[in-house]
Amino acid sequence: MLNFPQPDVEQFFQTFGIQTFTVSPDESQLVFSTNLNGKYNLWAMDLPNTFPYPLSFHDQSCKSLVYDKKGDFILAVIDQDGDENDQIYALPPQGGSLLPIRKMEGARHQFPFLSKDGERLYYTSNKENQTFLNSYVYDLKNEQEEVVVEGKDGMTILFDTSPNEDSFLFLKALSNTYGLVYVKQGDEEILLTPATEPEHTVSDALFVSENEIYFVTNYDGDFSYLAKFDLETREFQKVLELEKEEFTQMKYDKSTGSLYLVSRKGVQDYLYSFNLSEGELEKLDIPVKVITQIVVAESGNVYISGNSSTVPENIYKKTNKGWASLTKYGVPGVKEEDLVVPKVVTYKSFDDLPIEAQLYLPKPDKNNGHVIFWPHGGPQSAERASFRALFSFLVHRGYTLFAPNFRGSTGYGLAFTKMVEGDWGHGPRLDNVAGLEWLIDQGYASRDKIFLMGGSYGGYMALLLHGRHPEYFKAVVDVFGPCNLFSFVDSVPEHWKPSMVKWVGDPVKDKAKFEEDSPITYLDSMTKPMLVIQGAKDPRVVKAESDTVVEALKEKGRDVEYIVLEDEGHGFSKKQNEIYVYKKVLEFFERHL
Amino acid sequence: MLNFPQPDVEQFFQTFGIQTFTVSPDESQLVFSTNLNGKYNLWAMDLPNTFPYPLSFHDQSCKSLVYDKKGDFILAVIDQDGDENDQIYALPPQGGSLLPIRKMEGARHQFPFLSKDGERLYYTSNKENQTFLNSYVYDLKNEQEEVVVEGKDGMTILFDTSPNEDSFLFLKALSNTYGLVYVKQGDEEILLTPATEPEHTVSDALFVSENEIYFVTNYDGDFSYLAKFDLETREFQKVLELEKEEFTQMKYDKSTGSLYLVSRKGVQDYLYSFNLSEGELEKLDIPVKVITQIVVAESGNVYISGNSSTVPENIYKKTNKGWASLTKYGVPGVKEEDLVVPKVVTYKSFDDLPIEAQLYLPKPDKNNGHVIFWPHGGPQSAERASFRALFSFLVHRGYTLFAPNFRGSTGYGLAFTKMVEGDWGHGPRLDNVAGLEWLIDQGYASRDKIFLMGGSYGGYMALLLHGRHPEYFKAVVDVFGPCNLFSFVDSVPEHWKPSMVKWVGDPVKDKAKFEEDSPITYLDSMTKPMLVIQGAKDPRVVKAESDTVVEALKEKGRDVEYIVLEDEGHGFSKKQNEIYVYKKVLEFFERHL
Repeated sequence: MLNFPQPDVEQFFQTFGIQTFTVSPDESQLVFSTNLNGKYNLWAMDLPNTFPYPLSFHDQSCKSLVYDKKGDFILAVIDQDGDENDQIYALPPQGGSLLPIRKMEGARHQFPFLSKDGERLYYTSNKENQTFLNSYVYDLKNEQEEVVVEGKDGMTILFDTSPNEDSFLFLKALSNTYGLVYVKQGDEEILLTPATEPEHTVSDALFVSENEIYFVTNYDGDFSYLAKFDLETREFQKVLELEKEEFTQMKYDKSTGSLYLVSRKGVQDYLYSFNLSEGELEKLDIPVKVITQIVVAESGNVYISGNSSTVPENIYKKTNKGWASLTKYGVPGVKEEDLVVPKVVTYKSFDDLPIEAQLYLPKPDKNNGHVIFWPHGGPQSAERASFRALFSFLVHRGYTLFAPNFRGSTGYGLAFTKMVEGDWGHGPRLDNVAGLEWLIDQGYASRDKIFLMGGSYGGYMALLLHGRHPEYFKAVVDVFGPCNLFSFVDSVPEHWKPSMVKWVGDPVKDKAKFEEDSPITYLDSMTKPMLVIQGAKDPRVVKAESDTVVEALKEKGRDVEYIVLEDEGHGFSKKQNEIYVYKKVLEFFERHL
Repeated sequence: MLNFPQPDVEQFFQTFGIQTFTVSPDESQLVFSTNLNGKYNLWAMDLPNTFPYPLSFHDQSCKSLVYDKKGDFILAVIDQDGDENDQIYALPPQGGSLLPIRKMEGARHQFPFLSKDGERLYYTSNKENQTFLNSYVYDLKNEQEEVVVEGKDGMTILFDTSPNEDSFLFLKALSNTYGLVYVKQGDEEILLTPATEPEHTVSDALFVSENEIYFVTNYDGDFSYLAKFDLETREFQKVLELEKEEFTQMKYDKSTGSLYLVSRKGVQDYLYSFNLSEGELEKLDIPVKVITQIVVAESGNVYISGNSSTVPENIYKKTNKGWASLTKYGVPGVKEEDLVVPKVVTYKSFDDLPIEAQLYLPKPDKNNGHVIFWPHGGPQSAERASFRALFSFLVHRGYTLFAPNFRGSTGYGLAFTKMVEGDWGHGPRLDNVAGLEWLIDQGYASRDKIFLMGGSYGGYMALLLHGRHPEYFKAVVDVFGPCNLFSFVDSVPEHWKPSMVKWVGDPVKDKAKFEEDSPITYLDSMTKPMLVIQGAKDPRVVKAESDTVVEALKEKGRDVEYIVLEDEGHGFSKKQNEIYVYKKVLEFFERHL
């Protein structure tokens, strides 16, 4: 009877977020950080009722929440306007002003957890050790503090203590693909993985008893598996390994002697329960495709937060009848069934390497016949089966969207991830070209109806593909993408520089490769209409990178539109800017349909 | 272990509000207008889950919501920035942009309801009849509209139609204590109450069948009772009357053939179910002291919204296990048990008239021994057992608060309400004086520890009590109070003027009375410290009223603080102004403790 207007771009970006959550010991209260009133604040619900009420009006992001073991207070890790100087505050269960517990200007306080009796706070901070960090125990009763682990050689993070707080489990992160985990007992530091040459990582570790430690590592493997270390026998043991699937985080459920293990396989996460005494593994149905956080209560009840392509971040509780959605965030004004679940497809690249990709097909009545090809950023941040306002609204408008996880993407084993290191522009580029051919071959794309869009490394790849394979594209959008590897490795923040040789290459030794892989080399053939978006304050990909491309192309009389966001860095911190830019992107595509 | 700070003034005023709500026909969705994200928008919950999600981002107040009978859309009555030009919009159940349905600039569209099949919208508007209003039926399918009742003699509002839409039930409001209800059948207009001299009102009316109408009136009575009119026999019949309690609104439950009746007795509301065939009355337990709205679903399920002194406005559903609180608003950061439920007390005035009052006693550990005496505004707006952020925070800070419902207050019968008409300054004033004596007599107040505070008529009364009985008070706060009845009756908005003679008196005929009852007459004896608060744009009590008092007292060297809010009228439209003023009020009291 009534004809309602189509949802607009705004609605898709007005979706709320959830940053982190915790549950009171008796599970009568769930506390979470969300931007329900426009900015991030702490909110709570009195379960089983799920109506939220505010605990704070501090208007800042919260990284981590810890509920006191007796239920008397909540600890919250909060920084100021994104300065990453995380401070630890407390507030009562009914909410109120934030009481600073561990706060020091310019310092970062992270990874807090409480002793079993709730009287001692463990955390890691850079306040006395800028580079490698120290871990501390702070007595909440007598307000005394001491260092429990002093960081050296690499960034050191305290993961856990043994039940009687005699042993301290910590990670030493030597690079983002090299981390070792140790137990400190008195003055002794015990390495838990055998001391061998090949680098490996440890992503989670915990004590289940005074002498038994479980942890997740890819030592001597491509995918991370569950391992055990016995402090008495000093024995390392591989416990549980899955085919092409890696464990990422875990929680111990004392009530059943089980571990809850979150795994990752390609674009999707899975959840397992693993009974330690029986060695029985059970795969659990989950209501999300990507798990952000898992909380196991004393009772054994399990809570997770996560999202999927059609449902933004929400918190769920496992019940006898399945998972109850405690929060109910969706895209305002859009029914879930009007959003699209991408197909997960695999195609072979030039060298027969299988590449997984997500293919979003619009509803038939909306399909406009055009494909947007999306190389992701990172370059190692694989595109996952998670909620993306940008994808949702483009596909809702009738575009097919294709997002390949080219070589370098995480989630396909350590070897696959390392394939982009030192090769930014060859292998990954050809994986994208193979993706384009596959799309055309399968009938999903017509040669004259393909758009290209990417951000950060994806922006770099969009420029490079435009320069080297312009025949595929009707028009190109580059968001914060570097155009010149020489200037890029030179202009990144100082603390990135040590890792740039391994990651990108050496501008002197690899000069020819750098030239070959820099989009700027191919300006002549960048003939298609282009929209370039850049944050004026971007410290990662500086504005000069975009200026160079835009100026050069304008000189050649090419059709280039340039949007500079004066108050943004590498990404969108302001919803209004995000909405403005994606409205412009939509207009740009519609103009070239 | 941790010492958290006391809640501050802000927290009490950060309490959220609920304006109105509706329920989908299958009761799977509840839609309500709330300011959860800072401004009023429409939100929904998918019952039984109570987590809210936004339907609109229009940032405006909503007066009324109607759910389509088939569940396809929601109608919302919304004005712009409080301009009271209410327009009717529609939006789909999942939310989105507002689609104008009945909208005309400068016009008001009110009291919407839908035909049984949901295809015709009935409403009342001033668009073609500024003074008396017309009622319309708008066909949503073919977008045709016609007038069903043309207003004349008094403001005319369409209440209901008979089930087959042949008869139209409307109210003709001749004054705020004189209203008649009619049925229009063809060209005939049938008056439902016997045509007699004494004025009376009708506050609600509905059809239960083609010929049976139930309504609430105080025709030939002091308190409103339930009456019936039979269109066939043309017979008026008193159906149900309660002792010193009056019915205010009702809903028909077709599923059981019952009426749900909301009643009012003094400071509190009650809810009854009345079976029409059996004539059985059942009093229902309710979770609130004051009922704002009642919705009866097709299934017979009952939803109410309301509040009480310790719990702000919330929505509740009646279940087998009692009332479930669907929303969960409280005072942020304050536990309900830390707020105070007032005692309801009765004392005798100078002429033995019983006066009911609410006495808020602070928690013993917070009690500062001082009393704030609060004459309410209106002068007919009785102080009720409802949530008041102002009272909550003053009592939480240790003050005793006393709010008498002096003669003129509603809720104690029509005769009691009319006692303030033409007598603003004698009877009501002496009721307040008797209240002060009662407080001292009962040991609740010490003669040297009483503060006085009131707004609007309560501000006038505060000034008058200060001028005529200064010996009672330590300090006085006047918020938007008139000081001079002559200038007051002269400066109110034009459309108020016709009723001013009946309400206040005639400045010529009642000159001596006006002089006696004007606070300005007693400036000499206003010797106590005073805080005066005034909105610069107040159209009801103009700024000159406060200017006069402040200037005169300053000339006499008295201790007067004057706060003028440049962007406020008669009341607070902006939360920040409200918080600012009440912080100032608290400081003022604390200074004179």
